Amino acid sequence: MSVLEFWFDPASSYSYLAALRLEALAASARVELSYRPFLLGPLFTAQLGIKDSPFNVYPARGRYMWRDLERLCARHGLAWRRPSRFPRHSVLAARLCCACADEAFGPALVRAIFHANFAEDRDIADRAVLAALLEALGQDAAARLAHAESPEIKERLRLNTSAAEQAGLFGAPSFLVAGELFWGQDRLEDAISWAQTH
Amino acid sequence: MSVLEFWFDPASSYSYLAALRLEALAASARVELSYRPFLLGPLFTAQLGIKDSPFNVYPARGRYMWRDLERLCARHGLAWRRPSRFPRHSVLAARLCCACADEAFGPALVRAIFHANFAEDRDIADRAVLAALLEALGQDAAARLAHAESPEIKERLRLNTSAAEQAGLFGAPSFLVAGELFWGQDRLEDAISWAQTH
Repeated sequence: MSVLEFWFDPASSYSYLAALRLEALAASARVELSYRPFLLGPLFTAQLGIKDSPFNVYPARGRYMWRDLERLCARHGLAWRRPSRFPRHSVLAARLCCACADEAFGPALVRAIFHANFAEDRDIADRAVLAALLEALGQDAAARLAHAESPEIKERLRLNTSAAEQAGLFGAPSFLVAGELFWGQDRLEDAISWAQTH
Repeated sequence: MSVLEFWFDPASSYSYLAALRLEALAASARVELSYRPFLLGPLFTAQLGIKDSPFNVYPARGRYMWRDLERLCARHGLAWRRPSRFPRHSVLAARLCCACADEAFGPALVRAIFHANFAEDRDIADRAVLAALLEALGQDAAARLAHAESPEIKERLRLNTSAAEQAGLFGAPSFLVAGELFWGQDRLEDAISWAQTH
C-alpha cells in the first residue's frame, strides 16, 4: 500500500470537499495520508500567466464551480456558504498547515480552516480567525502562529510549492500516490484505490 | 424524468470516454439521451483567448490528460491509442454528427467517430475515414456527407455552438439536464441521477 499525498491550498474551493471527505475514506480503506499544503498562485502565474483564480479570470468556469460546489456539498451532507471574497489570501493559513502537518491535531486544523473559509465565510487571512481555530483545538495559538512564520516553515511552504510544480500539479486538490497524479476532489476515490493496489 | 443532453466535440479526448460509456448507463437508468455536437474551438478562443486545445497550450494539463485517459480507459475496459495528432480538425465530423443526430444509427456513428480518433488513430478530418465509418453502418456515405455540408447543417452546428456558450459550457464533454450543467466524463453518473430525479 502507498501513502496518499493530499496536496491543497487553503483557498481552494474544491479542496474543501476533499479535506472534509478524506479522512473517513482513507480510514475505511486503511490508507495512510500525508498532508502537503502548497500555494496555487505561483502555479497559476507560471502555467496560465494569470494573477487571480481561474474561476475569477474565466467567468464561465467560476459560475459552474459555485453551482457545482453547492450541489456537491448537498450530496455529501457538508455545510456550505459561498465566501463573500474569493480566493482568500491563504499564505498564513498554508504556513500554519505546514507547521502543524506532523501534529496529531493537524488534520483537524486543516478541516477547521476549510470549514471557516467555505462554510462560515470567515477570513482565513486574519490571524485572529486562525488563532480562534487553534484555540478551539486546545493549542497555544501564539506559539503555533509564531512557528508558522518562522524561516524554516516559510521555506517548507516554498519547497512544497516547487515540488508541486515538479510533480506536474496544475490545480487543487491533487492526490499523489506512488508518483501517480489524480486531480480534483471527484478523483479522491480513484486515488484511494490506487493507494490500496500500488 | 428529464432528457440528458450530451454535448461533445468529436475532437475532445474525454468525450471519447463519455460517448462510449453513455448508452449503457442511460439505458439501465431509463434516461432519454439527446446528442448535441458543437465546436470547442470558438469557446476556447472566446473564453480563454487561445487558438489551440488547452491541453496543448498548458503542458501540465496535457501531460496529465494523456496519462489520465490511458488509466481511465484501462479501468473501463475501453480501447485506447494516443492519437498522433491532437486535436484533430473536427468540423466535418461534427457536422456529420449534427446531420445524423436524429437517425437510429446516430449514436453508433458518434461512437465510431470517437473510436476512430482515440482507439485507432485515424484522421476524422479525412472524408474517406468518415465515409468508411458510414459504410460500416450500412449508410450511403456520399449522401450523408453531402447532407453534412448543406447550409442547413452548417447552420445547425453554428447554432449548437452558440447555444453551448449561452448555456454556460466551457469544455467537453458536458451534460445538460433540465438546465443543470455537469462538466467532465467523470460526472456522467451524476448527470444520469439528476435526470432520474428532475
